[in-house]
Amino acid sequence: MAIILNGKKLAAKIKENIKKDVESLKSQGIFPTICVIEVGDDPASKIYLRLKRKLAKEVGINERALHFPKEITQESLLNELKKLNKDPKVNGIMVQLPVPEHIDETKIFDTIDPIKDVDGFHPFNQGKLWQGKDNIVPATVRAIMTLIDEYNINVEGKNTLIIGRSTIVGKPAAAELLNRNATVTMAHSKTTNLSELTKAADIIVSDVGRPHLVTGNMVKDGVVIIDVGMNRENGHLMGDVEYNEIVPKASAITPVPGGVGPLTVASLMKQVVILTRMQNDR
Amino acid sequence: MAIILNGKKLAAKIKENIKKDVESLKSQGIFPTICVIEVGDDPASKIYLRLKRKLAKEVGINERALHFPKEITQESLLNELKKLNKDPKVNGIMVQLPVPEHIDETKIFDTIDPIKDVDGFHPFNQGKLWQGKDNIVPATVRAIMTLIDEYNINVEGKNTLIIGRSTIVGKPAAAELLNRNATVTMAHSKTTNLSELTKAADIIVSDVGRPHLVTGNMVKDGVVIIDVGMNRENGHLMGDVEYNEIVPKASAITPVPGGVGPLTVASLMKQVVILTRMQNDR
Repeated sequence: MAIILNGKKLAAKIKENIKKDVESLKSQGIFPTICVIEVGDDPASKIYLRLKRKLAKEVGINERALHFPKEITQESLLNELKKLNKDPKVNGIMVQLPVPEHIDETKIFDTIDPIKDVDGFHPFNQGKLWQGKDNIVPATVRAIMTLIDEYNINVEGKNTLIIGRSTIVGKPAAAELLNRNATVTMAHSKTTNLSELTKAADIIVSDVGRPHLVTGNMVKDGVVIIDVGMNRENGHLMGDVEYNEIVPKASAITPVPGGVGPLTVASLMKQVVILTRMQNDR
Repeated sequence: MAIILNGKKLAAKIKENIKKDVESLKSQGIFPTICVIEVGDDPASKIYLRLKRKLAKEVGINERALHFPKEITQESLLNELKKLNKDPKVNGIMVQLPVPEHIDETKIFDTIDPIKDVDGFHPFNQGKLWQGKDNIVPATVRAIMTLIDEYNINVEGKNTLIIGRSTIVGKPAAAELLNRNATVTMAHSKTTNLSELTKAADIIVSDVGRPHLVTGNMVKDGVVIIDVGMNRENGHLMGDVEYNEIVPKASAITPVPGGVGPLTVASLMKQVVILTRMQNDR
């Protein structure tokens, strides 16, 4: 029977650590501050932003929220980001995705100063990550690595399959796992032999957003499953893998919800602390 | 019997194209210029630099060569790079590796302005490559992709194994192949099941620098081999794969020498042209 990788429980512990880090910074006269930016009125974004702002408050991080109408031009938005880049009171900047279609999200990634890049999406930070420097890591990837570390999952030399190749999760997760000496395979929508790959994998990270993608007969005994998918079907939340089928075979598995998700927002706050320290040479 | 991927022949063709590109730029009053930098007196470096300078001349690219003694401090070297960043007459800057031990090569990568980064080693450019923008690509990787394109090798959905995870070849090759929709596996010194991976691979790119690494019984029929290794044994040059054993099984293979090597320097010059165009919005 698999060990259940309990992200919810771990998130509480991480939160306590961040609180202490923030207190220590405050005692040195440094007040970590995140600026979260909303463009338009996406309902899901509002939920995520509320979660982020709530957690920031909980751990003592100052939060500033900016809201722009969905009609804002790309140029104006980028100018706002440049202002925040220069604002010494802001340590971290994040734009909640998705942004309206007329705005190119890669321009946002490129514009936020790498040292204030809470999300870790700037090409410079992603390049650094591939070069083995993992100070700044996308929150979901930090969440994954936190689970792996906490549960002492050995990745070195393991066949690690990452399904999904987003800039936000799949690719930086590949970089981090490679940095930890995993043998990494990146699969995606054009992959033709997914079940061959899943059967050969010691560790599977899935971030596709398709329920029932990985079934019980597709994995080998003892597999470790990190399920980043978050899908809703008939009112139920579920990940990308067929949890009930895989639990009996896996050595460890994340539940959905309650696995990677709860750690992601906490990881974002951790990143604010890290950036604040970098900016202040602490 | 395998198609031999003839890099030497292809390099001649690429060179002619670059010559035309350079002439066209010159007719617009733009004179592409590369600055090559040597630190210390590594004999192999001298050979490579001579090749680079010779080819630059051949295709009409201005070349400036700087030589610094091996005792130069890191700070002084970085200052020289910053001067070149600001010099409007220099379009491309490259520091020949290896540099003396007291100099951190990642500081060099970080210091050269991304828009003059002929080698494509700057984290920003590497991050961009992972995000799907492949204007600036390390020369060896461009060489690999040129062979793949010229010989119409279909990589989409193919099991592509990259052995070796350097910043210079393995990782950016993974990015490029992923950009072309290959299913990409990255193997390295900590990989425990190399022969399983090679047997499952449709395409193998090896950049390890160890002769006899991949033998005939380790690959499947029809495999495509891109051998970036360059090893000397008993006075013979050879790649990482057991060429004579694999030729009968492969569908295509690069010889060593005469495969990727000759295309690398040409790719570097191509990059000078690309950077010059970017700098002049052409």
